[in-house]
Amino acid sequence: MMIIIMQPQATMAEKSAVIAWAEDAGQQVHLSEGNERMVIGLVGSGRLPIPEQIESMPGVERVVPVTRPYKLASRDFKPNNTHFPLGEHVVGDKEIVIMAGPCSVESRSQILETAHACREAGAHILRGGAFKPRSSPYSFQGLGEEALQYLAEAREQTGLPIITEVMEPALVPLVCEYADILQIGTRNMQNYALLHAVGKSQFPVLLKRGMSSTIEEWLMCAEYILSHGNTRVMLCERGIRTFEQYTRNTFDINAVAVAKHLSHLPVIADPSHATGKWEYVAPAAKASIAAGADGLIIEVHMQPETALSDGAQSLKPEKFARLIKEMKAIAEAVDRELK
Amino acid sequence: MMIIIMQPQATMAEKSAVIAWAEDAGQQVHLSEGNERMVIGLVGSGRLPIPEQIESMPGVERVVPVTRPYKLASRDFKPNNTHFPLGEHVVGDKEIVIMAGPCSVESRSQILETAHACREAGAHILRGGAFKPRSSPYSFQGLGEEALQYLAEAREQTGLPIITEVMEPALVPLVCEYADILQIGTRNMQNYALLHAVGKSQFPVLLKRGMSSTIEEWLMCAEYILSHGNTRVMLCERGIRTFEQYTRNTFDINAVAVAKHLSHLPVIADPSHATGKWEYVAPAAKASIAAGADGLIIEVHMQPETALSDGAQSLKPEKFARLIKEMKAIAEAVDRELK
Amino acid sequence: MMIIIMQPQATMAEKSAVIAWAEDAGQQVHLSEGNERMVIGLVGSGRLPIPEQIESMPGVERVVPVTRPYKLASRDFKPNNTHFPLGEHVVGDKEIVIMAGPCSVESRSQILETAHACREAGAHILRGGAFKPRSSPYSFQGLGEEALQYLAEAREQTGLPIITEVMEPALVPLVCEYADILQIGTRNMQNYALLHAVGKSQFPVLLKRGMSSTIEEWLMCAEYILSHGNTRVMLCERGIRTFEQYTRNTFDINAVAVAKHLSHLPVIADPSHATGKWEYVAPAAKASIAAGADGLIIEVHMQPETALSDGAQSLKPEKFARLIKEMKAIAEAVDRELK
Amino acid sequence: MMIIIMQPQATMAEKSAVIAWAEDAGQQVHLSEGNERMVIGLVGSGRLPIPEQIESMPGVERVVPVTRPYKLASRDFKPNNTHFPLGEHVVGDKEIVIMAGPCSVESRSQILETAHACREAGAHILRGGAFKPRSSPYSFQGLGEEALQYLAEAREQTGLPIITEVMEPALVPLVCEYADILQIGTRNMQNYALLHAVGKSQFPVLLKRGMSSTIEEWLMCAEYILSHGNTRVMLCERGIRTFEQYTRNTFDINAVAVAKHLSHLPVIADPSHATGKWEYVAPAAKASIAAGADGLIIEVHMQPETALSDGAQSLKPEKFARLIKEMKAIAEAVDRELK
Repeated sequence: MMIIIMQPQATMAEKSAVIAWAEDAGQQVHLSEGNERMVIGLVGSGRLPIPEQIESMPGVERVVPVTRPYKLASRDFKPNNTHFPLGEHVVGDKEIVIMAGPCSVESRSQILETAHACREAGAHILRGGAFKPRSSPYSFQGLGEEALQYLAEAREQTGLPIITEVMEPALVPLVCEYADILQIGTRNMQNYALLHAVGKSQFPVLLKRGMSSTIEEWLMCAEYILSHGNTRVMLCERGIRTFEQYTRNTFDINAVAVAKHLSHLPVIADPSHATGKWEYVAPAAKASIAAGADGLIIEVHMQPETALSDGAQSLKPEKFARLIKEMKAIAEAVDRELK
Repeated sequence: MMIIIMQPQATMAEKSAVIAWAEDAGQQVHLSEGNERMVIGLVGSGRLPIPEQIESMPGVERVVPVTRPYKLASRDFKPNNTHFPLGEHVVGDKEIVIMAGPCSVESRSQILETAHACREAGAHILRGGAFKPRSSPYSFQGLGEEALQYLAEAREQTGLPIITEVMEPALVPLVCEYADILQIGTRNMQNYALLHAVGKSQFPVLLKRGMSSTIEEWLMCAEYILSHGNTRVMLCERGIRTFEQYTRNTFDINAVAVAKHLSHLPVIADPSHATGKWEYVAPAAKASIAAGADGLIIEVHMQPETALSDGAQSLKPEKFARLIKEMKAIAEAVDRELK
Repeated sequence: MMIIIMQPQATMAEKSAVIAWAEDAGQQVHLSEGNERMVIGLVGSGRLPIPEQIESMPGVERVVPVTRPYKLASRDFKPNNTHFPLGEHVVGDKEIVIMAGPCSVESRSQILETAHACREAGAHILRGGAFKPRSSPYSFQGLGEEALQYLAEAREQTGLPIITEVMEPALVPLVCEYADILQIGTRNMQNYALLHAVGKSQFPVLLKRGMSSTIEEWLMCAEYILSHGNTRVMLCERGIRTFEQYTRNTFDINAVAVAKHLSHLPVIADPSHATGKWEYVAPAAKASIAAGADGLIIEVHMQPETALSDGAQSLKPEKFARLIKEMKAIAEAVDRELK
Repeated sequence: MMIIIMQPQATMAEKSAVIAWAEDAGQQVHLSEGNERMVIGLVGSGRLPIPEQIESMPGVERVVPVTRPYKLASRDFKPNNTHFPLGEHVVGDKEIVIMAGPCSVESRSQILETAHACREAGAHILRGGAFKPRSSPYSFQGLGEEALQYLAEAREQTGLPIITEVMEPALVPLVCEYADILQIGTRNMQNYALLHAVGKSQFPVLLKRGMSSTIEEWLMCAEYILSHGNTRVMLCERGIRTFEQYTRNTFDINAVAVAKHLSHLPVIADPSHATGKWEYVAPAAKASIAAGADGLIIEVHMQPETALSDGAQSLKPEKFARLIKEMKAIAEAVDRELK
């Protein structure tokens, strides 16, 4: 279903050409003639015409698609919340699920120590980067498979399931050997080959929103994963780029409620990237729960001043433990549970 | 205090010219010579050089100001929270202050009826537009002074103090005859003549953030008002423009915590404009309190489908009353009071 | 003319309510029922319904206005280019009109000297700020009426007409005593009281685009001025705010062609603000003419390193003179004239 | 080289900790003490400290890196323009190189016919998509290897070298079997695994700027490719995302001059994506050359109204031929050659 708005000065021949074209494409055509403009509505069962084709026809001003472009990700398709277990917890239902850990796995001792600290503070899932997307080729790029092995060892010791980022299709099988949940980073949201690969893996996926993407584009990327029958997709709002310089990103808190409204998928907030400074992580985390998030992913580091990445936005374990308590109070106030 | 970064290929003559220029301006000069570049630090008591002048000098790459440009608005200047009474309530301290009412005053009966409904639901202050900034000259522009008279009558009947927008310097005296608090709208944040006028009025001012402004620019506009000795300024985050189309604006929830951190002024959130759709107002309002806002301004309309402006983002009184209850729970969870 | 897209799950009662509401508003209603959604087209002669009212009705997904909101500014209303004389030159026709001068008038000798230099280099109109909108209340705010007197003296000596910014409605009569063309700055594009005042003045107006405004919003502001019967309006593209940090603004070169396509008004480019650095002014200026601009406004300063504002983006007279020659070559290549 | 700005209220102990930390990292430390703040300059030969680590230390306000993060891509590293042959033409020197062809290869006859038309009109290189990044998984995704074979056949018939997009590391060898130049699309600018792969290939690469990326981020991605010793990199400005809705993207014409100023690499403009509408392609193309671009990549389609992608922004061959003539005139006006 699609609406074509003709230019005021469109000729009869131009209008007829558009109508003929649409009928050829198997569409039923509805005409509305105003004082100035003709509007042509397409309602049909034939193959969907491509908006840009129509926009290139003479006399056409613009084309307005009526139907949302995502299907499997939408509440129209599946009205009830999607929920699924992650370790001993369930995401997408009443519980608030907490993922925590360092930005990067830096050493065996670092990740083991942090894993225990996170577990004690109340985290449910351990995060840690093995492969790191860095804006400079000269920056630390992650320990790779070695990091995956340390993460697996941390899981063994603490019982926490592991989430880690995968950056290229060829590495999905390797990461799946070690991890429980795959993370797609903000720079790779529209890396379609990667989306196909994690879709096929059938592993749970945390899909971060692109840093300048709209919610619609984000849901379209979830659609890529869902189209492989992989229904365990979590949407992660991690802040978008704006003109503001005092924070690393702007946390689009609206996106939590909007994504919950339009989609049945669980929505996770990342207050660490969404602010970029540890002193703003706690207010953002509490706001996320108040706004309806199903979980959070938070960077925790034993010594942020020695972190090889993202030190400025990492919480020390004691601050993280205090935040967990504050979040519990908010969770209760909105009738959710943080176990 | 200011840092000048020279280009790698800057000549000795270019460096000397900058140094001489800075010393002429009464600045003490500190030099740091790296492998590639020279950095010139200015520390001084003379008149502050203008960054753009220096940037126009040959060999200069860029200039980094060290000192924040706002003074009276900063916590460095005044470490403790500014708080002051608005009617029977105090803003900037432990209380959460609620301002509510229609976007525009449309008629005497409309504003009187809404005022009573807002008061019953728990609002502390009545909002209502008399002069409306509209993107089209053909749209409803507000009832003007007539609206101010109705607002005054509503105050008399309900006891609620009045907040209303003033759009031009020449009208400040008129608006001050009727209103208790002056509102500067987002399009007028950098209308400096208006900022001077409301500064001189000595009335409490709610300063909305410009829809594409940084927090620093916002604080600089507060500085304009404060520079007239008018210390009763409230900062209002009302959403910024981003690429997102599913909401009217993007609520910069980070800005609440950042503004509280950098400034001593009270911070108010406007979840109605920050979302633009009534169904997202409640999550945004709750998130505001969780993030540390000192108050909210919320659009309430008896019949949004007949509103002459902003109907889509207005709450009906019964929804507003329910929201007040939900906000109370959040306020308690963060150790604040909503009376 | 307007299109209402209903939600897929909208009930029959909700659809009927919208239809009844539209008919009450005097609109003819066209229905298109797709597989998933109903689309309701309004074609009518009654009072135009307000989109936001409809969006607040249950079951409505979104509203798409069909008609462009600007009228007098559009080519639909006036197909041929608007052109009018400015001094001895005509803007909006075949000629490229060049406005040049300092950002601020700083002293009598400065403006007189610069005026002569600009005239010799080939400028047609003299610019110079008397009232300056500054982001800090502590910055130089302009010399005010004194500057206007110096500008008038410069006109007397050189014959160049004067363009200068006016920042508040109350000062329009004063500025009109001295200036030939009024400039509305980027921060005041939506200062509606000011737009009304310059509209009533019947003076030629240069309307700068707001730094984060869309072309549609810009044309709506031109509409405010045109609605007073003042047809001598020039649109000025001066760069928009983006994430780019290496330039002060991002020059939206597309806006030149788009504004010429949608509107009959002359379009002027401001390569000084659009780049913010003198070394990028020349490429931007030449690109403007290649893209179809009707004129340029360029900052020229005798000694940029002493300028009280915008030094970094000002050309010295000799660079400006060289640029004029380069622009002449481009003007010829696109069949325009730079006299 | 790096500058650390301390908070005004930083304690002596906090300052000492930062200084000790920097010295441990092998940095020489320069102190500047102002009235309010201490500024610590690091000049050194030891391992570069990570800004985020320092920002996480108590008392630190912010960290300003002095050195630009890109090296191989910068003019500081290589002052003269990089130029290299593409078929019979040389990019990066005096010539303007024109790449043209359809967005997608749709069939053998389509690409052969278009290739001949482009050659006759004056194009130097043939573009055509074999693998297409589409926002919807339900859209046409390209003909894949079949398209590569058709492109090779078109090259054989016309002599035009081939440029085509590669979307995943594993496909680089396949694409290199057929193509002459590899294109990295806007969504993959920060797909680091892909950048490494095309770097290793030693094929010429056209690197499109990410649609919300800064020029610095773009140069950092070129750095990834250059770090493999692959010096044949072209930067392509293809428009950035802004709030403007009348065009698909905003053409950042400044980026052409800025990239030429900061880097020695050739800069190509893509006026088709930078505008998104065929009627604005010609002004944007002419502006590119006036601003200093070394080449253009333009979408040409025999019948845009049947194109499977990007029809709205494609030129018909006769319009393209006319544009070539207009561009020649501009090229001469700026002392360049379009053969």
